[in-house]
Amino acid sequence: MDHIYKTVDLTGSSTVGIEDAIGKAVGRAAQTLHNLRWFEVDEIRGGIEDGAIAHWQVSIRVGFTLDDNAID
Amino acid sequence: MDHIYKTVDLTGSSTVGIEDAIGKAVGRAAQTLHNLRWFEVDEIRGGIEDGAIAHWQVSIRVGFTLDDNAID
Amino acid sequence: MDHIYKTVDLTGSSTVGIEDAIGKAVGRAAQTLHNLRWFEVDEIRGGIEDGAIAHWQVSIRVGFTLDDNAID
Amino acid sequence: MDHIYKTVDLTGSSTVGIEDAIGKAVGRAAQTLHNLRWFEVDEIRGGIEDGAIAHWQVSIRVGFTLDDNAID
Amino acid sequence: MDHIYKTVDLTGSSTVGIEDAIGKAVGRAAQTLHNLRWFEVDEIRGGIEDGAIAHWQVSIRVGFTLDDNAID
Amino acid sequence: MDHIYKTVDLTGSSTVGIEDAIGKAVGRAAQTLHNLRWFEVDEIRGGIEDGAIAHWQVSIRVGFTLDDNAID
Amino acid sequence: MDHIYKTVDLTGSSTVGIEDAIGKAVGRAAQTLHNLRWFEVDEIRGGIEDGAIAHWQVSIRVGFTLDDNAID
Amino acid sequence: MDHIYKTVDLTGSSTVGIEDAIGKAVGRAAQTLHNLRWFEVDEIRGGIEDGAIAHWQVSIRVGFTLDDNAID
Amino acid sequence: MDHIYKTVDLTGSSTVGIEDAIGKAVGRAAQTLHNLRWFEVDEIRGGIEDGAIAHWQVSIRVGFTLDDNAID
Amino acid sequence: MDHIYKTVDLTGSSTVGIEDAIGKAVGRAAQTLHNLRWFEVDEIRGGIEDGAIAHWQVSIRVGFTLDDNAID
Amino acid sequence: MDHIYKTVDLTGSSTVGIEDAIGKAVGRAAQTLHNLRWFEVDEIRGGIEDGAIAHWQVSIRVGFTLDDNAID
Amino acid sequence: MDHIYKTVDLTGSSTVGIEDAIGKAVGRAAQTLHNLRWFEVDEIRGGIEDGAIAHWQVSIRVGFTLDDNAID
Repeated sequence: MDHIYKTVDLTGSSTVGIEDAIGKAVGRAAQTLHNLRWFEVDEIRGGIEDGAIAHWQVSIRVGFTLDDNAID
Repeated sequence: MDHIYKTVDLTGSSTVGIEDAIGKAVGRAAQTLHNLRWFEVDEIRGGIEDGAIAHWQVSIRVGFTLDDNAID
Repeated sequence: MDHIYKTVDLTGSSTVGIEDAIGKAVGRAAQTLHNLRWFEVDEIRGGIEDGAIAHWQVSIRVGFTLDDNAID
Repeated sequence: MDHIYKTVDLTGSSTVGIEDAIGKAVGRAAQTLHNLRWFEVDEIRGGIEDGAIAHWQVSIRVGFTLDDNAID
Repeated sequence: MDHIYKTVDLTGSSTVGIEDAIGKAVGRAAQTLHNLRWFEVDEIRGGIEDGAIAHWQVSIRVGFTLDDNAID
Repeated sequence: MDHIYKTVDLTGSSTVGIEDAIGKAVGRAAQTLHNLRWFEVDEIRGGIEDGAIAHWQVSIRVGFTLDDNAID
Repeated sequence: MDHIYKTVDLTGSSTVGIEDAIGKAVGRAAQTLHNLRWFEVDEIRGGIEDGAIAHWQVSIRVGFTLDDNAID
Repeated sequence: MDHIYKTVDLTGSSTVGIEDAIGKAVGRAAQTLHNLRWFEVDEIRGGIEDGAIAHWQVSIRVGFTLDDNAID
Repeated sequence: MDHIYKTVDLTGSSTVGIEDAIGKAVGRAAQTLHNLRWFEVDEIRGGIEDGAIAHWQVSIRVGFTLDDNAID
Repeated sequence: MDHIYKTVDLTGSSTVGIEDAIGKAVGRAAQTLHNLRWFEVDEIRGGIEDGAIAHWQVSIRVGFTLDDNAID
Repeated sequence: MDHIYKTVDLTGSSTVGIEDAIGKAVGRAAQTLHNLRWFEVDEIRGGIEDGAIAHWQVSIRVGFTLDDNAID
Repeated sequence: MDHIYKTVDLTGSSTVGIEDAIGKAVGRAAQTLHNLRWFEVDEIRGGIEDGAIAHWQVSIRVGFTLDDNAID
């Protein structure tokens, strides 16, 4: 109950779909941030090539507890 | 054309993905509400455990006709 | 001053116009809810048939005091 | 993780202040709803009499798990 | 860098899911518009029949370069 | 269920009132667009002359099915 | 083209309907402000008594040129 | 029911807290405006000095009846 | 720290550009209001004549301290 | 006063600045649309290369009268 | 006047109230960030246990000058 | 297509104008962040001294690829 949380804004890309793009952004965040707790989807978009969806881009806000992470 | 509609706000959870979380919320609403007509997605978020997405949470607004349903 | 209020979200329909659609939603709410106090318009839309407006749909939020009404 | 949540929109009033108005709305919800989990503040406003704040009104969204509660 | 872009607002439907509904809208746009570049999701909703999701409807904004396309 | 919809943004004017301004915009759209389905009101405004309302201007989004209509 | 405009926020009331409430607010503004030019509707709401709409309240933003009007 | 209301936008400051900042803005408005009726909170912010909150700033919209007050 | 601020909403016009339109609105406000402190841009728009931008219109919110200014 | 207006959404690019990007979008629209009347700025963004702003992109909504223009 | 500012998004928790939750988030930020200048409240929410408010969670955006702080 | 992006929120100041304030924020970010890709304008405001604009402040969101940058 006494935690302080910080959120950062990331965008993941995927040729597979929306959930996969989110998963990649979360996975990348987990490489350097500990104590990840939740994410919220801010925007879903994507690139089109030759008249078809070429990749998905999903922007998320990721929240984590500020225990041994620095604030920048 | 003469229907009166009501909407309620629900959040479904799923370890599978976004559509499944929505489907669970709609299925739960259908247990006690008749004449469900449509839903709109309000928010997509989720929980993270051990650096990976643990579950999806999707908040929806579900609309139904007020024929034999009470308003509360 | 000590009242607790609840709001519910309804959509009324009418072939006559905007005020009539709102009036129908309020009238339907009054059948089962006591102590209705106010409404706010959230969205005005409508259906088109044969190139003309066939009916109006107005979504409102209706507020009432929680005295002998249940919260669901 | 498998819960379905519902939210309802309430407004609490208080002559004391913002937190007290929220607490009254939560307390009223707890009389008839089990498994309350969280609230979000939607709007803070109030009434003025004789040039001073006479009462506070805070609108909140209250979330709870749909286990043995009905959806209406 | 010197392109002028135009966006149009489309809604795709699908019984399969969210990505498929978006793909159908993009595919339809590609029939008459050249140089499609990106899309953004504006709204995710759907129809309910017999208490289950009958179809998904996703509204997107599609962007393209105005080279040999007309503006209307 | 398999339709693709497009929306266009129009503003109708009227010296009579809000519904009439919307009706004029819908009527104008029906001259060149088939399969109009619905409209949503985006903005209500108007001009003032000599201290009185001179005309109403209502901006709507009109949706139609993309069957034999072109996308531009 | 060289005018400076100011806007003020008013709410008009009426037992007749939406347009009448707007007209009353514009009429009241015209008593003390010259050069009124336009209005925009910000919010439509109303009071309910005995289960029926008792009065309409429409909040508008009214714009006028700052020629011989003071800014406060 | 026949009142015309006007709202003005004020920001109050306080070293004590949120309610006190609102109270100061309301009190200042009451010095020159009669018939104040309600306020709504638009924004809560504050200044930080030496790593601690130095003062609170709360922006409110204050509404009053236009009886013997001028519109500017 | 103990100041009360008021904001007013103005729109400046210019044939030169965005900054000039803002500067004209600020300059006009300074003729009758003392202690102007800050502005925020709310909307950038403009008029088109003969297929080219004829003038810029920028709506700003201007804030000032309420020391010897009246509230209206 | 009896005009029907349509708006379209365009994005102009420029290496010079914001006003120039808007002017290019308006100029392109004027090639195929008559009776352009106004524009509103929706979004200002840009590309960065080698740590400096490489180009500006401004999204605008352009309005025109529907006299001899088609609606698509 | 020549400062560059950065903002970060934090959430503070407290069992005491809203101001205390904000103060904790600001205090935590001050441990690793110098030159904190202001904060803005983005969201007020909280957890409910046994039908009463168990803790408050307030999300704020904290601004500081980028003098000897890194941007990440 | 497989990049993960992060965005940070900065505010640049300038006595010259809007584009210059944005350029200063981008230039500062480029000192410590590699692979800057785009920016979006969130807010345009400024300070007023002696009745004239003293400086411009523009808040932007800057996006970059997360290749060899850390997430904090």
